[in-house]
Amino acid sequence: MRLEADRMVNLTLADKDVTTERQVVMEERRMRTDNDPGALLSEQMTAAQFLQLHYRIPAIGWAHELAKIGRDDALAFYHRYYAPDNAILVIAGDVTATEVRPLTERTYGVIPARGVAPRERLAEPRQLAARRLILRDARVRQPTWQRTYLAPSRHAGAKEHADALEVLAEILGGGTTSRLYRSLVVEKKLAAAAGAWYDPVQLALSRFGVYATPAEGVDLATLETAMDGEIARLLADGVGAAEVKRVTKRMIAEATYARDSLYLAARAFGEALTAGLTVADVESWPERIAAVTPADVMAAARAVLRPATSVTGLLLGDGKS
Amino acid sequence: MRLEADRMVNLTLADKDVTTERQVVMEERRMRTDNDPGALLSEQMTAAQFLQLHYRIPAIGWAHELAKIGRDDALAFYHRYYAPDNAILVIAGDVTATEVRPLTERTYGVIPARGVAPRERLAEPRQLAARRLILRDARVRQPTWQRTYLAPSRHAGAKEHADALEVLAEILGGGTTSRLYRSLVVEKKLAAAAGAWYDPVQLALSRFGVYATPAEGVDLATLETAMDGEIARLLADGVGAAEVKRVTKRMIAEATYARDSLYLAARAFGEALTAGLTVADVESWPERIAAVTPADVMAAARAVLRPATSVTGLLLGDGKS
Repeated sequence: MRLEADRMVNLTLADKDVTTERQVVMEERRMRTDNDPGALLSEQMTAAQFLQLHYRIPAIGWAHELAKIGRDDALAFYHRYYAPDNAILVIAGDVTATEVRPLTERTYGVIPARGVAPRERLAEPRQLAARRLILRDARVRQPTWQRTYLAPSRHAGAKEHADALEVLAEILGGGTTSRLYRSLVVEKKLAAAAGAWYDPVQLALSRFGVYATPAEGVDLATLETAMDGEIARLLADGVGAAEVKRVTKRMIAEATYARDSLYLAARAFGEALTAGLTVADVESWPERIAAVTPADVMAAARAVLRPATSVTGLLLGDGKS
Repeated sequence: MRLEADRMVNLTLADKDVTTERQVVMEERRMRTDNDPGALLSEQMTAAQFLQLHYRIPAIGWAHELAKIGRDDALAFYHRYYAPDNAILVIAGDVTATEVRPLTERTYGVIPARGVAPRERLAEPRQLAARRLILRDARVRQPTWQRTYLAPSRHAGAKEHADALEVLAEILGGGTTSRLYRSLVVEKKLAAAAGAWYDPVQLALSRFGVYATPAEGVDLATLETAMDGEIARLLADGVGAAEVKRVTKRMIAEATYARDSLYLAARAFGEALTAGLTVADVESWPERIAAVTPADVMAAARAVLRPATSVTGLLLGDGKS
């Protein structure tokens, strides 16, 4: 704590520290993004999904901007954000609040609040046009198909759908018993992999995603037609009570196991608090998920699975496919 | 001049002025954009074309942001930008510089420079994925197809291509003798209209566009294939010296006629100066255009007509097409 508190106020930063660290970050970007066509497509899809929200900018930064960051930029960020009144402290372990609270007060507590200004929260304009991106790159060995839909988070937009969207993602694409896996991989043998995801923990809006990797010899158009068919079937026929029950039970069981990890439990609270939620929001999650009904899932699906707010991405080798 | 100079410093702005004017602007947005699906698609395409440049934001503002603009925002803009040192004065008419210069010095000249800070110029990250937008709207009676490519302007990017891109736009889509019109409208009878455009006068990057409206009963996929065919033919077979000569002659003649308009001539200089160009840039335009060769046109076409930096937009009625 003393170390962490100290570096909230006493940073000394030489030009050469920044130069060295910038090289490290640029190398990280090259390795993780620029050398990976899938990561590049994901970055371009994110920039296409959010018209106005800052989520459209990659967290690591665009390559050409990263190259220009200097000591002044780093210090400006530090002075603006790196303060106790902008930090959330999560302590996990064999300790009690009575024991650790005086320690935090003696270390972080003595640092004056910096009066961190509220960050500007841009709102999204209406999204009216289905978007489609095709990235061709000679390095691609395995084409992929994916789509994201603009979605509420637990903190922003039509947040009443957030729990049901988690259940929907699990029904559509959670593991080998999910609808997409069973239909596209097992039955139709069109895909080598297929799934869905949703991230409810965002301060602003979030995304709901579906994806598939074609089986050998299957083109992406065929795969997309089958994917669209599964989504249309869901929207037309709904989900069953037994299906929802089975899935929510598994979600709660998995979350309970995950809480056994000291790190994951602490992280869940930290992320939630950073995204504007409360400890109570995290603690009531199992009850809320258990209470999700088929009608909730369908209301969420109808609200979110709309072409006009979607971004579809195709990753292809350089040749036609 | 006295009036214009006066309002650079002596603005009084009441809340009710802003409220009234905001209503006017919101109504203008509703009329020109929100009630016009074509304008909405154009807005969404622009936001998809520029990943980072502020050109991605519509000049009139997103509807939800417009609704929140108040007196403080208006005053902040006024104090930041509305100053003689950020203005370009163009005087056209039967006067000489000797006559008007003293007038400008007595009116604008006495206002202290405000030291307008250089505006932040974002640069575009690499554009790697062809984008495609589909906007479906029940109000659409006439589907349209269009595409824009990220392009240099005369002031930014590979600006050596700017003159040749103007010639290319004219060859491809300037009037009824252009390639696109002759092929898609006259010969193949697939389109009711077809054309191309390019705007060289931008401070930052610009766009090169092609578009077509299908003839009765022709679907957009057929039209797009024909359009792609014309572009591929151009890239494969090039342009002829006679074609370039005919087009550049017409461009220069049309520009000469346009200069007869006091307003258009003044506007051309004003726009150019605002976009970082000089009076000499405007005056040398006819010579530069006359000097464009077929090789210049093809180098520009190859640099710009690239799928990875393109945005294709389809405007459709609500039914399938």
